[in-house]
Amino acid sequence: MRLAIVGATGAVGHELLSVLERSTLHFDELLLYASPRSAGSTLSFQDRKITVQVTPEGAIDADVILASAGGSVSKALAPVWAANGAVVIDNSSAFRMDERVPLVIPEINPQAALTHQGIIANPNCTTAIAAVALWPLHQAFGIRRAIFSTYQATSGAGAKGMDELLSGTKDFLEGRKVTPSTFAHPIPFNLIPHIDAFQDNGYTKEEMKVVWETRKIFGAPELRISCTAVRIPTLRAHSEAITLELERPATPDEARELLRQAPGVEVVDDPNARRYPMPLTSSGKYDVEVGRLRASLVFDGGLDLFVSGDQLLKGAALNAVQIAEELQRQGALGARVF
Amino acid sequence: MRLAIVGATGAVGHELLSVLERSTLHFDELLLYASPRSAGSTLSFQDRKITVQVTPEGAIDADVILASAGGSVSKALAPVWAANGAVVIDNSSAFRMDERVPLVIPEINPQAALTHQGIIANPNCTTAIAAVALWPLHQAFGIRRAIFSTYQATSGAGAKGMDELLSGTKDFLEGRKVTPSTFAHPIPFNLIPHIDAFQDNGYTKEEMKVVWETRKIFGAPELRISCTAVRIPTLRAHSEAITLELERPATPDEARELLRQAPGVEVVDDPNARRYPMPLTSSGKYDVEVGRLRASLVFDGGLDLFVSGDQLLKGAALNAVQIAEELQRQGALGARVF
Repeated sequence: MRLAIVGATGAVGHELLSVLERSTLHFDELLLYASPRSAGSTLSFQDRKITVQVTPEGAIDADVILASAGGSVSKALAPVWAANGAVVIDNSSAFRMDERVPLVIPEINPQAALTHQGIIANPNCTTAIAAVALWPLHQAFGIRRAIFSTYQATSGAGAKGMDELLSGTKDFLEGRKVTPSTFAHPIPFNLIPHIDAFQDNGYTKEEMKVVWETRKIFGAPELRISCTAVRIPTLRAHSEAITLELERPATPDEARELLRQAPGVEVVDDPNARRYPMPLTSSGKYDVEVGRLRASLVFDGGLDLFVSGDQLLKGAALNAVQIAEELQRQGALGARVF
Repeated sequence: MRLAIVGATGAVGHELLSVLERSTLHFDELLLYASPRSAGSTLSFQDRKITVQVTPEGAIDADVILASAGGSVSKALAPVWAANGAVVIDNSSAFRMDERVPLVIPEINPQAALTHQGIIANPNCTTAIAAVALWPLHQAFGIRRAIFSTYQATSGAGAKGMDELLSGTKDFLEGRKVTPSTFAHPIPFNLIPHIDAFQDNGYTKEEMKVVWETRKIFGAPELRISCTAVRIPTLRAHSEAITLELERPATPDEARELLRQAPGVEVVDDPNARRYPMPLTSSGKYDVEVGRLRASLVFDGGLDLFVSGDQLLKGAALNAVQIAEELQRQGALGARVF
């Protein structure tokens, strides 16, 4: 099985290599692609050095392509790669809401991956992190309304977002002017309630992705969701405060017990020991931290909770590799013989 | 009229002096008090230098006492000061929920100030910032449910909170270990969903203050409110994402128009020009910034909004001085003759 990464030198590409090193995915060859600017460099994988090639304009001779080079690259090339027989697992937003493209979180809808027609979409990071925690609650109690407020790290805008926070913070501390370029405003010691483009309804696209994608992944088009997405001066891991109205009443104890059994989440919920989800502890972790579970004060039988998860891992690289693992486990890879 | 500040050398004390310099409050003498550690120093007020005295164990000979020295000092001494004839405007949480003590935001319930029996409570900063924006909406449309998620600055924990963020950030950038003391965990490039003590219901006291105090100030004991309070690595100004269910449907345009006329708030809501509330712009400002107004996606006819306000000003010092100004305007000060 030949595996390719397109966008290998970016923040998600870096995580893909590290997740693949620890993965059970079997592959014989690993091909790395990036833009002309980054091509020619070498990246380490296990005990090998692999040279990064320029992403070709046409087909790539691989069985599985993990694409993390942005929406415009995916939009143009993923259909070409798929037509050539590859399964494309796409990390951009280009195909997520396409009816022919499954949007997959393996803990939630693994069977959807098998219905692909060449392209499988990896969800938005904010959506993925909350969804693994909410799915067991939705199955048991039926979510009717969900209200999200997010606390998103600068690396959600890629490595350059993180760099802008670090260098801007240094500038601020040394009394220099902070000049934003990746973000709309200076981010050090500030927050920005604006991620991705504003839509006609006043919500940002990032906020609407949480609405649209959660409904699609849960197969629950009637689910009422609202979101406020906010960039804060952290490096890595997104956090989210979530309030739930449920069809059937739940207690925090029942929810905690359910989540302890659930794949992909770690219950971190011992406030008296000062244990709750935080970027400091969730960064670099595969599981999403869930805590601050408490009875809702606005919805009888509802719940409030707080999640924190590494958006470069479960929110991107890890979920993509897990989709490939799931396909291999189901025998849905390797139709082509080399 | 003799005016005293107890806790004059703290973060709020500093702001009180600066607000008083720009205030219309008439007073003949200004007395400054602090703990023995800070007493003896001098503080500038207009063109004068005033020596800070040790807070006495008993009565203070003043007409109005602005107290910002913490709950235990207020609890012990405010009744003594009041018994001696002073009007105490207390910034601590000690008396806020006391039925005999009015809890006042002059834009909302100025008449309550006149009912005092010697002590008037100044609300919690997070409560005050949201309340000035929500009150006009509550009057016009009737708030039924309000869901808050907060983004709170380190100076909410006083000057030492801000210092811990700045020195910790420097430590982090220079590769040293960050050791928390004011906060439960390292705050640089992190967030902490834990402000004040945890209660039996799993909410923190900070979160419950928003519930209890908003109801008391609005005179709406049945209002359903929930809150998640989160400390983030900013220096000054608290922000809040708020979702509202309303008795009578409102459009974002109606709400915006109403808030443009409202005292104490500034509508900052032009997303396409990248204008929305942020700590960067709301810090040092008297008015609370309100923006991101949009139709709720979970409550028909409801609203979502985002506020950012200087918690040392409207959330503390400014509101306290405004209460004193209100009393003076109503002729309720100066009963004593010197």
